Amino acid sequence: MEKKAQERTLMSYTPEIKVVDCTLRDGGLVNDFFFTDEFVKDLYQANIKAGVDYMEFGYKASKEMFDVEKFGKWKFCDDKDIRAVVGDNKTDMKISVMADVGRCDFKKDILNKKDSPVDLVRVATYINTIPAAVEMIEDCTKKGYETTVNIMAISKSNDVDIDAALELLCKSSVGTVYLVDSYGSLYPEQVRRLSEKYLEVADKYGKKVGIHAHNNQQLAFANTTEAIIKGVSYLDATVSGMGRGCGNCPSELLLGFLKNPKYSINPILKFIEQHIVPLRASGVIWGYDVPYLLTGLLNQHPKTAIQFMKEKREDYHNFYLELLDNF
Amino acid sequence: MEKKAQERTLMSYTPEIKVVDCTLRDGGLVNDFFFTDEFVKDLYQANIKAGVDYMEFGYKASKEMFDVEKFGKWKFCDDKDIRAVVGDNKTDMKISVMADVGRCDFKKDILNKKDSPVDLVRVATYINTIPAAVEMIEDCTKKGYETTVNIMAISKSNDVDIDAALELLCKSSVGTVYLVDSYGSLYPEQVRRLSEKYLEVADKYGKKVGIHAHNNQQLAFANTTEAIIKGVSYLDATVSGMGRGCGNCPSELLLGFLKNPKYSINPILKFIEQHIVPLRASGVIWGYDVPYLLTGLLNQHPKTAIQFMKEKREDYHNFYLELLDNF
Repeated sequence: MEKKAQERTLMSYTPEIKVVDCTLRDGGLVNDFFFTDEFVKDLYQANIKAGVDYMEFGYKASKEMFDVEKFGKWKFCDDKDIRAVVGDNKTDMKISVMADVGRCDFKKDILNKKDSPVDLVRVATYINTIPAAVEMIEDCTKKGYETTVNIMAISKSNDVDIDAALELLCKSSVGTVYLVDSYGSLYPEQVRRLSEKYLEVADKYGKKVGIHAHNNQQLAFANTTEAIIKGVSYLDATVSGMGRGCGNCPSELLLGFLKNPKYSINPILKFIEQHIVPLRASGVIWGYDVPYLLTGLLNQHPKTAIQFMKEKREDYHNFYLELLDNF
Repeated sequence: MEKKAQERTLMSYTPEIKVVDCTLRDGGLVNDFFFTDEFVKDLYQANIKAGVDYMEFGYKASKEMFDVEKFGKWKFCDDKDIRAVVGDNKTDMKISVMADVGRCDFKKDILNKKDSPVDLVRVATYINTIPAAVEMIEDCTKKGYETTVNIMAISKSNDVDIDAALELLCKSSVGTVYLVDSYGSLYPEQVRRLSEKYLEVADKYGKKVGIHAHNNQQLAFANTTEAIIKGVSYLDATVSGMGRGCGNCPSELLLGFLKNPKYSINPILKFIEQHIVPLRASGVIWGYDVPYLLTGLLNQHPKTAIQFMKEKREDYHNFYLELLDNF
């Protein structure tokens, strides 16, 4: 069993920290994964230079469930497409993909690790599909992958269920369990409490804990730093916070904060100049705005806010009243 | 002496909390205080309906130092201009103005309270001008005003000097001492520590503590909630975070967070629809962006970032290298 995570301070040197870039995966939810090859190749190089530990290329979505014509290739992450970017990935940065319970054909689509450029499979599950998640985790472990698991939407779950889920997952072969703030509704105080809860079970079984935050209330970065202080090690971030709706913890904020000298903010700043500025200028929209604040505040799925933004509505007050009707 | 501030939780009911709207004052730094009369009148009404405790109308700047032609009237806050909006202000909301040490003619321009619609004078000082701040505080107290004091740029000061400043100020007649993150460089962990420091001295002398945060690292709201938990009571916010450079803690986030039923987010949402959306559309720019992150990260004054934005530069990487030269 590994050493129990210690609380950290701003000055702490924390070699066990792993930064996971999810720009293509969570950002792909903004543009249906239609990134240019140049964007992806330059992001790969920028992440390597920035000291990022894992780069997530996208989802392993089922081609039987999703129309490959309607999405870019990173929704499916064929090994050949990843290889076209990374070759044999002879770098210190590892490659990850995400697989959603019930939305992938993992038995068929996830090959053995020895035949794949992927290092880490990240399983995403709701709390009521944990047994299916465990099946996926065990399958991936057997195939030779590192695994993590995201328990989504826990802000809608009660503590008894979360405790049971943590026990089940930590008894599996999974390496890291993620604290996920799906709706961007959690305040730092809650993240500290939940981090302690996750770490307590994870420590018992020699597992790590990660955090994946959303920025509905401008708290994605703050919640990530608070989780770090408590001992959370795997940190999800995206360049300029690109991600569904209001997006995620921005890589440039996180890399600026981390004191491990292996991390550098410069390559990410260059990538923002080269790719994020034109992407935004082309009309791809994400980031904090009032509708996301309101769904976060009310602990609701952001889909209504995303729709509100799509319709270019600005009647925030009416929208708030509509959301109150969702209870 | 008042009761020592207790640490609070998310569920705490905190009647001693005071929300201070600084939209005109800090926001005025964005547009040189050229707000329309309708904007100001509607903001006044929105703040009243939202349960805001104090509304700050602007600065009491010296008309001998600053050209009245170059700024809107809220840089000077003549009592007659405030009265044109608030009449006799027969509401539960109090009126405040800010006066900078060395940039105002307080003896002449600040009348006796009985002749003024202003309730609270907020003195802003650097740590090396505390004696001048105390002189202003005593003058305003004698004239019948509530007073607060902002010690600015403390992220550049050492603890010994901050301790001495707190003692000096808390021995004055000031009501509230503000913890101010001028450069948006403080992390929640530091805000918690500084809140404890400020509260320890303030409690000893029966004073309150306030917080004024900037959003350079998307931490203005988080730093405010963390200060609340520690026992800080006076909370500065601006609608949509409008304020110099990257702006401040957004009122709509703060009012959503506070559990005191006197506060309501709805009137602010309506105000955003009516006035903030068109103000932004007219080209007035503020809010989080990469250059502000970089000055915040490096604990520097935001003026270089504001200039960068004005010049519509996008070479973030070069800018970062320029900032590193400022050490």
